[in-house]
Amino acid sequence: MGRIDIFNQIASELGYGFDGEIKVGGNYTPLLRHDGYIYISGQIPRVGDAVVVQGVVGSDVQLKEAQKAAQVCVMRALALTDRAVGLDKVKAVLRISVFVQSAQGFTQQSEVADAASDVLYRVFGDAGVHTRTSVGVYQLPKNAPVEIDFIFATL
Amino acid sequence: MGRIDIFNQIASELGYGFDGEIKVGGNYTPLLRHDGYIYISGQIPRVGDAVVVQGVVGSDVQLKEAQKAAQVCVMRALALTDRAVGLDKVKAVLRISVFVQSAQGFTQQSEVADAASDVLYRVFGDAGVHTRTSVGVYQLPKNAPVEIDFIFATL
Amino acid sequence: MGRIDIFNQIASELGYGFDGEIKVGGNYTPLLRHDGYIYISGQIPRVGDAVVVQGVVGSDVQLKEAQKAAQVCVMRALALTDRAVGLDKVKAVLRISVFVQSAQGFTQQSEVADAASDVLYRVFGDAGVHTRTSVGVYQLPKNAPVEIDFIFATL
Repeated sequence: MGRIDIFNQIASELGYGFDGEIKVGGNYTPLLRHDGYIYISGQIPRVGDAVVVQGVVGSDVQLKEAQKAAQVCVMRALALTDRAVGLDKVKAVLRISVFVQSAQGFTQQSEVADAASDVLYRVFGDAGVHTRTSVGVYQLPKNAPVEIDFIFATL
Repeated sequence: MGRIDIFNQIASELGYGFDGEIKVGGNYTPLLRHDGYIYISGQIPRVGDAVVVQGVVGSDVQLKEAQKAAQVCVMRALALTDRAVGLDKVKAVLRISVFVQSAQGFTQQSEVADAASDVLYRVFGDAGVHTRTSVGVYQLPKNAPVEIDFIFATL
Repeated sequence: MGRIDIFNQIASELGYGFDGEIKVGGNYTPLLRHDGYIYISGQIPRVGDAVVVQGVVGSDVQLKEAQKAAQVCVMRALALTDRAVGLDKVKAVLRISVFVQSAQGFTQQSEVADAASDVLYRVFGDAGVHTRTSVGVYQLPKNAPVEIDFIFATL
């Protein structure tokens, strides 16, 4: 299976479509290519106009839902990348930063991030093995449980 | 108008001057050039010796003040860049990370970051359209309401 | 003294050895080389299987202990780098991001980060002078007091 087939399979498992417009407000862009690199803005689990999971992880939001939210963030980044250059042009995933909106005492940020890492590995194989930083933050935009940004290298 | 003229105009609108020394303590540097890139350390809204806005956004600090603080952070980064290479050498703004010291329940981190994005767009035009990550953190150094770091590409 | 000698001296001052396996769970890697750059995943103060300092800085954990924890994070990154390419191949430390698990009202994130910066400067000299972002976050994985990630440039 090609990368796009795996992408579509994961979309189907999650139960969401990622072919709608990916909106941003403000004078910035969700994706920027420069000199062999792709930078992707922090993605929250938004599908269309809706943030599909909202709340604080460890109180309102359980680990499993937070993991699903993390996967939606990755799928948005992959959808953006596919439109900009095609998934086949990704040579390496250099770094992801995973910000988890965390309840006091919630320390499983790595477990949330693992779900994001799994999607990258399923789609890209060895080229999807990346470096990662996971932290627990106090608040995220739109009460999102997770926000993830990305740096890819392109062929 | 050239970039430096727009920079000066924004400084005048904000009511601050950015031609003083930009101090750092510790064994690090506010700006580092490497191989076509400029990395800028996390900037807080300090002018001279004073952090000009302090407090938690959403309780002590209102959105408008936080937006002004975000603009001061960007102006510091631009002042550093102007001294190091000149604003005209900036080819692209690749990424900014915006950390907002947030009260519980404050979810307008993106709106704070929009004010930063606006300054970059005013000064650089299309070259100022960047990727961005905005998160709400619990505490920032010196009780700053906002901290922003930057990666630029140079000509 | 060579870099590795200084590294060993700091290890001895800290009272820890860094020659054990550096484990990660999940589909990611602690270190990734790409095209003249080394990206290092967020490091917590783990030695072997134990996180050697745990807790919230400013309440459970005092500044001095947090500074030591920050130094252990850096030493882990240096140990990883030494195995991958050798410390002598590091040309520049481009950026570190320092996340401090902070108590309400704790604003000395920069002072924690200074301890990390000092290790980089001791080992690399001028090549260790980096850009830095320090923020206070609400929770870190495994209740770590500090997490630090890194971007190095290689010769």
